Amino acid sequence: MSSRYRNFRNSVPWLILTLEVVLVVLFYFFFSDDDASRSSISYPAFQDVSHMVIFGFGFFLTFLKRYRFSSTGFNLLIIVLGVQCSALIEDSLVFLLQRESEDGLKRITKAAMSTTAVVISAGAVLGKTNPVQLILMIVVEIIVFHMSRCINTTFLQVPDNMGMMHVHLFGAYFGLAVSSRFSEPSPRTEENASTPKSDLLSMLGTLFLWAFWPSFNSVLAEHDKSKAIYNTYFALAVSAVTAFMLSLLTTKDGKFRMTDIHSAVLAGGVTVGYAAHIIEYPWIAMILGLLASVITILGSYCLQRCLNPALKIHDTSGVHFTFGLPGVLGALAQVVLLVIKKWTELPRLGYLVMIDIGAFCLTISVALITGFITGLILNLKLFKIIPVSKYFEDQFYWEFPHLAVGF
Amino acid sequence: MSSRYRNFRNSVPWLILTLEVVLVVLFYFFFSDDDASRSSISYPAFQDVSHMVIFGFGFFLTFLKRYRFSSTGFNLLIIVLGVQCSALIEDSLVFLLQRESEDGLKRITKAAMSTTAVVISAGAVLGKTNPVQLILMIVVEIIVFHMSRCINTTFLQVPDNMGMMHVHLFGAYFGLAVSSRFSEPSPRTEENASTPKSDLLSMLGTLFLWAFWPSFNSVLAEHDKSKAIYNTYFALAVSAVTAFMLSLLTTKDGKFRMTDIHSAVLAGGVTVGYAAHIIEYPWIAMILGLLASVITILGSYCLQRCLNPALKIHDTSGVHFTFGLPGVLGALAQVVLLVIKKWTELPRLGYLVMIDIGAFCLTISVALITGFITGLILNLKLFKIIPVSKYFEDQFYWEFPHLAVGF
Amino acid sequence: MSSRYRNFRNSVPWLILTLEVVLVVLFYFFFSDDDASRSSISYPAFQDVSHMVIFGFGFFLTFLKRYRFSSTGFNLLIIVLGVQCSALIEDSLVFLLQRESEDGLKRITKAAMSTTAVVISAGAVLGKTNPVQLILMIVVEIIVFHMSRCINTTFLQVPDNMGMMHVHLFGAYFGLAVSSRFSEPSPRTEENASTPKSDLLSMLGTLFLWAFWPSFNSVLAEHDKSKAIYNTYFALAVSAVTAFMLSLLTTKDGKFRMTDIHSAVLAGGVTVGYAAHIIEYPWIAMILGLLASVITILGSYCLQRCLNPALKIHDTSGVHFTFGLPGVLGALAQVVLLVIKKWTELPRLGYLVMIDIGAFCLTISVALITGFITGLILNLKLFKIIPVSKYFEDQFYWEFPHLAVGF
Repeated sequence: MSSRYRNFRNSVPWLILTLEVVLVVLFYFFFSDDDASRSSISYPAFQDVSHMVIFGFGFFLTFLKRYRFSSTGFNLLIIVLGVQCSALIEDSLVFLLQRESEDGLKRITKAAMSTTAVVISAGAVLGKTNPVQLILMIVVEIIVFHMSRCINTTFLQVPDNMGMMHVHLFGAYFGLAVSSRFSEPSPRTEENASTPKSDLLSMLGTLFLWAFWPSFNSVLAEHDKSKAIYNTYFALAVSAVTAFMLSLLTTKDGKFRMTDIHSAVLAGGVTVGYAAHIIEYPWIAMILGLLASVITILGSYCLQRCLNPALKIHDTSGVHFTFGLPGVLGALAQVVLLVIKKWTELPRLGYLVMIDIGAFCLTISVALITGFITGLILNLKLFKIIPVSKYFEDQFYWEFPHLAVGF
Repeated sequence: MSSRYRNFRNSVPWLILTLEVVLVVLFYFFFSDDDASRSSISYPAFQDVSHMVIFGFGFFLTFLKRYRFSSTGFNLLIIVLGVQCSALIEDSLVFLLQRESEDGLKRITKAAMSTTAVVISAGAVLGKTNPVQLILMIVVEIIVFHMSRCINTTFLQVPDNMGMMHVHLFGAYFGLAVSSRFSEPSPRTEENASTPKSDLLSMLGTLFLWAFWPSFNSVLAEHDKSKAIYNTYFALAVSAVTAFMLSLLTTKDGKFRMTDIHSAVLAGGVTVGYAAHIIEYPWIAMILGLLASVITILGSYCLQRCLNPALKIHDTSGVHFTFGLPGVLGALAQVVLLVIKKWTELPRLGYLVMIDIGAFCLTISVALITGFITGLILNLKLFKIIPVSKYFEDQFYWEFPHLAVGF
Repeated sequence: MSSRYRNFRNSVPWLILTLEVVLVVLFYFFFSDDDASRSSISYPAFQDVSHMVIFGFGFFLTFLKRYRFSSTGFNLLIIVLGVQCSALIEDSLVFLLQRESEDGLKRITKAAMSTTAVVISAGAVLGKTNPVQLILMIVVEIIVFHMSRCINTTFLQVPDNMGMMHVHLFGAYFGLAVSSRFSEPSPRTEENASTPKSDLLSMLGTLFLWAFWPSFNSVLAEHDKSKAIYNTYFALAVSAVTAFMLSLLTTKDGKFRMTDIHSAVLAGGVTVGYAAHIIEYPWIAMILGLLASVITILGSYCLQRCLNPALKIHDTSGVHFTFGLPGVLGALAQVVLLVIKKWTELPRLGYLVMIDIGAFCLTISVALITGFITGLILNLKLFKIIPVSKYFEDQFYWEFPHLAVGF
């Protein structure tokens, strides 16, 4: 390690400290008092969202055998910084746009949900960013995502809870765009591999995501919460069944592939998020869950073999097919359901469809463009990008005092 | 692997797809609309039951060192298929018997609870069934369990929440009967063994079951929920203490045995389930917890040494003494408590006792008989039963692309 | 193993049985009937506290590579015995002092919270006590902690929920005092070490503690629950950020140290506990979180290098700097916040400050003195203290039938 590199490292803690001090000062000025008399969100609902981001994503990303400390550790760092930034921006927007203030619990819940975007993006560049790049990405992405949501709700009149559902889409495409600027690791090396044990730990994270997804999709719904819950549940159930089926079909010898299970069981939750509270019958949610799982596994098959190598994108944890494609399908399904439902009111229908499509296009364009720019900035020499040989390596960031390194 | 076997494997995904399509179509016809205005079950209560089956059973069964992917993976498959089947049958029964429809959340909660029966049965044949056999078992067992519950509630006038408490009993004896038709593995081989790590993972599952058991026992109680919660909690607490004590007594050198702890800490929850909401004082629940733990550990000792080898039953995860015997004790305790309570109203007492005993006998007979028949069917040559040498082997079902297979 | 030692072991189960029988008998006499009509605590809130002690502490202490069975197993034993003792003592006090009885759910919640003290103390002597010593410690500490709380609430008029917040402080200093009487293990031996895997499992426990801490701090608050929740959340968030920052500063080469992260991310929760419901603005909680994290990491640095060797205290899991020092800071912060808030009402202020300082001094003195005495008693020859060479060794207490001991 060169001495210049060490100097760079020594500046990291001061960067974090400065950021935290700025956050505290801004909280002093901007964070409005809580009007705690009533809350539209129950505490258990908030806890579910919190568990989903802490445990779910924390362990979902632990499949790289030499990057497990960083996966869980940096995930915590992303969430705690992201929630603070997000709560602050939300409050500043309320202050600047003279909107009505929300209660404390709802504000943290929305902050935790927004942070999901960063966590997903971080999955795309997992093992390739150093902490400084990660922190910069957190701040930029949270700001951009809030701007995108704010444009959606202000100019396109998208309801707030629907705007939040773009979070997976935004996170996935922002992450992909950032990832396109990082150099590719050598294909399937020792470091980049998983072990049965890390796959199992990742399964724990997947189950946490699976179990808490109905809460995520229903927490912001003003009414029909119960409908959102059971539609999501059935969509997830069918996704899981389909994941097992397709995994058998796409492997040689008809065996299950763990990574397929990890990504495809969640697809239904992402897809049904947009329409969970308006779907009338569970069988519609179930069909969406089935399609979502299909698109995820086929996507994983095609992208990894064809598109990604062509575009030179390396997507470490497959966020494109786990969160991106099902998100696109969900946005599409929302439009189709709307057309079917409001078929009789033609003029109004056209307007509503335009809004949904507009919000979708806006979100995805903002994500891709700002992600690309962020990727360019993160690869400035200033940030001492990690050499490809040090990708996916815990020991580069963490002390390993363990006598017997029994990885 | 012979080519005939491969052909069989290639038919599995189409079987799953057909089943799922049938389920979606049936949902289209049978699943009634949700009257979401009121729900007798809170969302957190449903979540607790869901966590118990997903995390609890998912990791409780991971103690086999070479069967951990299948344990968690197939557990998820069982639950998602089981919940769909169960919700559908429940709804068809409501439709056919012209009963009052329940709200969506309560229906999924009951579906998840019913699925516990299949999960427990799957524990008895853990590592010995292929996915096709498993799926067939799910469908058959869910149907039979619902029939058994339906007879109990319709003809014996057993309250709905009490009928559900037979789920452990039913699951255990159904599983045992199925298991009796499978060939025995060679005693304590390399594959059949646990490692300290898999035991620890199984401990995580045990703790999940332990922590969520009060929810399971109280969720369907119409009133006295709070009583059901704390009676279950104290019964579980005393079970755990007794488990530690008896583990010391039954091992050489006075050491603790992890497998004893796994099964006996849960015994109190099973036993007290039948009477949790009617027990007046916690000390009664505590005594039941103590007895349950005693019966579990003594049962484990006797069954594994004497009865099972004689009957040629191989019960992989010990569901007989973990869920079966405590269930029997619980049903007995329920009758005794009833006799003590209603001692003064003799004629009515006799009637009530007869009903409880009738429900118990009916449940256990249906479980044993249908389980035995299911076991016979599953061992038809058609289903390509697994050779004993491939029992407990993840690599038979899962791809292992890991470079360094660091099991 | 000498035959005298074996005789001692054989007496352990009878000790546990006697204790359990005594508990059941006392429950019969003392545990009053539940007036279940209303409960000030919701079931999910109780569950959160229960999860925190079961999963959080159960896995937080699994960082010793050869002591993981004991860490989770004995943690369960501590909790189930502790909750029973605690519920009983609470009820006897209600009976003796003729106070108003509380509902069942609140009583178990308070019992689970009180047990935290024992779990923390057990962390200080982790790997050095045999089960008999542990059980004795549970009974003594629970009794003493309840006495200390009772004096606080009766004579110093400390509100009940504030008195409970001394639990971390009490647990830490009781544990340290007990620990001072145990012989020191040889410095950083093979047995005493952690592995990357055990550190990761410990991280799971840490995340459980982190995620459920807002529930712990808010569950007993009569009003302003929402304020307590989000103040705790922000304090924990800033603690986590600061933990990452300071970990970089205090290690060579600017790497993160996992043990620092484990302890410091929780510091904010402990510190803010005393004042969570009265802090007006989150930025105050955030500053407390930052200071708590600083004091924890600096404390860990100073104590392990200077104070502990001088005082010959070996604190296995660092409870002094994880729970002790942040607790002291929290008590101090509470006084400072009180002074700032009530500056105008001078005479009453002095009285209030004296009460807070009195409660703090009383708690810490009682903890230290009784802990020291308990330590002396536990080291009587009667209890067959473990030789230093057998410290941190699972195989001393647990059967290891595993064919391939793949630690």
